[in-house]
Amino acid sequence: MSQYVFGVDIGGTTVKLGFFNVEGELLDKWEIPTRTEEEGSHILPDIAASIQKKIEEKQITPEIIAGVGVGAPGPVDSEGVIHKAVNLGWGTFSIKKTLEEIVHMPVMAGNDANVAALGEMWRGGGQGSNDLIVVTLGTGVGGGIIVGGKVLTGATGAGGEIGHIHVEDNETEACGCGNKGCLEQFTSATGITRLANRKLKTSDKDSVLRGGEITAKTVFDAVKAKDELAMEVAEEFGRYLGNGLASIACVVNPEAIVIGGGVSKAGEVLIDYIKPYYEKNVFHGSRNVKFALATLGNDAGIYGAAKLVLDTE
Amino acid sequence: MSQYVFGVDIGGTTVKLGFFNVEGELLDKWEIPTRTEEEGSHILPDIAASIQKKIEEKQITPEIIAGVGVGAPGPVDSEGVIHKAVNLGWGTFSIKKTLEEIVHMPVMAGNDANVAALGEMWRGGGQGSNDLIVVTLGTGVGGGIIVGGKVLTGATGAGGEIGHIHVEDNETEACGCGNKGCLEQFTSATGITRLANRKLKTSDKDSVLRGGEITAKTVFDAVKAKDELAMEVAEEFGRYLGNGLASIACVVNPEAIVIGGGVSKAGEVLIDYIKPYYEKNVFHGSRNVKFALATLGNDAGIYGAAKLVLDTE
Repeated sequence: MSQYVFGVDIGGTTVKLGFFNVEGELLDKWEIPTRTEEEGSHILPDIAASIQKKIEEKQITPEIIAGVGVGAPGPVDSEGVIHKAVNLGWGTFSIKKTLEEIVHMPVMAGNDANVAALGEMWRGGGQGSNDLIVVTLGTGVGGGIIVGGKVLTGATGAGGEIGHIHVEDNETEACGCGNKGCLEQFTSATGITRLANRKLKTSDKDSVLRGGEITAKTVFDAVKAKDELAMEVAEEFGRYLGNGLASIACVVNPEAIVIGGGVSKAGEVLIDYIKPYYEKNVFHGSRNVKFALATLGNDAGIYGAAKLVLDTE
Repeated sequence: MSQYVFGVDIGGTTVKLGFFNVEGELLDKWEIPTRTEEEGSHILPDIAASIQKKIEEKQITPEIIAGVGVGAPGPVDSEGVIHKAVNLGWGTFSIKKTLEEIVHMPVMAGNDANVAALGEMWRGGGQGSNDLIVVTLGTGVGGGIIVGGKVLTGATGAGGEIGHIHVEDNETEACGCGNKGCLEQFTSATGITRLANRKLKTSDKDSVLRGGEITAKTVFDAVKAKDELAMEVAEEFGRYLGNGLASIACVVNPEAIVIGGGVSKAGEVLIDYIKPYYEKNVFHGSRNVKFALATLGNDAGIYGAAKLVLDTE
């Protein structure tokens, strides 16, 4: 019977790896560089070699390992096929089959943000809920939808692209995805900075933000210090995200909503700004939803990747 | 081995019943009145008696019947428990258990709109797709989300409430659900009428709609006759629905979108107005989606209810 499982989270510069027991305890974690040269052809062999080394180091036999779960930065369908990962130099191929051939263990793969959502469900801020929206507020806005304990992958692996729901008809600048008016443009770290810079230009209110560095962190620090202009920015942020999450909740009827990513370090104050708009505009059947902050930080991906494998056991 | 299955669609005034073979052919259909008096306590016994009569009439043995599927107008969770159906006088109880005790066959239950979506996937406009958004434009806007061939029920049975996603911050009138700015307020039959009446007041354009009866049908008839004012109304309708569907598609990444309900009788012209906004604002990973009209009409519910049972076999 399986006793251990590996979880792997492939990023643009480093690959995070975790060694877990099947109860979900993280026993060891480490990183290797992501070698994106030669169309990223070294990445999976490097991962396989690193896992092999760890197995030898731990002096365990492969028979008691459930397999290797992988999160990758691109759309991954339910068969484990990635449909392009620009950051890694990857085209379209089966992560599952390719890695299984070198690592000689069962492999499961998913989109990194979706897999991280699964991690938060399993051992993080969403523990105890099987129906979950996880939204990750970082440089961009990512996310994952968990339905009945499973990741909503979608027809081509593009499920849970929460950051790109359309929330503003009047936006003139383009989002990274090419569209205009995406949630990400107003609620990512970059989006919050943008909102603050716009507000500083159009308002003549005094503010601790004037003349200083404008980041999501300085904005929410100013909010905590009751800076009025910063609070107006937070209000706009909360309106976009609260209304956006309300629309998503009408569709998926979650039990809980988990907020993660770098911006979530601001803490509970985020939820204070999001929740009133959520509750105002969500369908009554989804009104009593638990809001929580993510707790696994950058480890969410390796947890979720490990869980992907255990779910198929 | 099972050869037949019953599908039941409970409405506020009539209950529709269908008798199918397991391949999904509708062999017989009929209706009985919905007796909502005495807190709707006669409804399930009436259904059981009607099915019993049909079994005798067809001279078949209960052993070759897979069971009875039921769609009901309220949130039904994945255990078959309905959480209030105001139209029927029902509180919270298990449709599954209650009906199984009188009908002595396996029973499955779901929300009527969700179940109708499953019907369209199985034998209607969504045939061949396992990941589907079905939106029903009737008096209100209902819908269902199909993920990997299964209905997205949600934590408390309120999944797929597409009509209540928030699409307009500036709406001052309330939706039937109590919120303001729901998709239903602009894209249901009533919503289209509302848009047209507003447009007639604010525009001084000549129109065949002036002085006549304003309904979704007369509006789209005028659109087909190239009436400019009606075309402006259709444009607004298309913007709300296209953008709304784009947001939903970012979340669920469907293979196809099926448009049903009374309004869909207007035909392909609806899709002509919806699709440009959808494609403009959807995440690129969900751009190449098939749009189709629903084909089962009022029978979608009994088809989907039958399918609910067959899926558990």
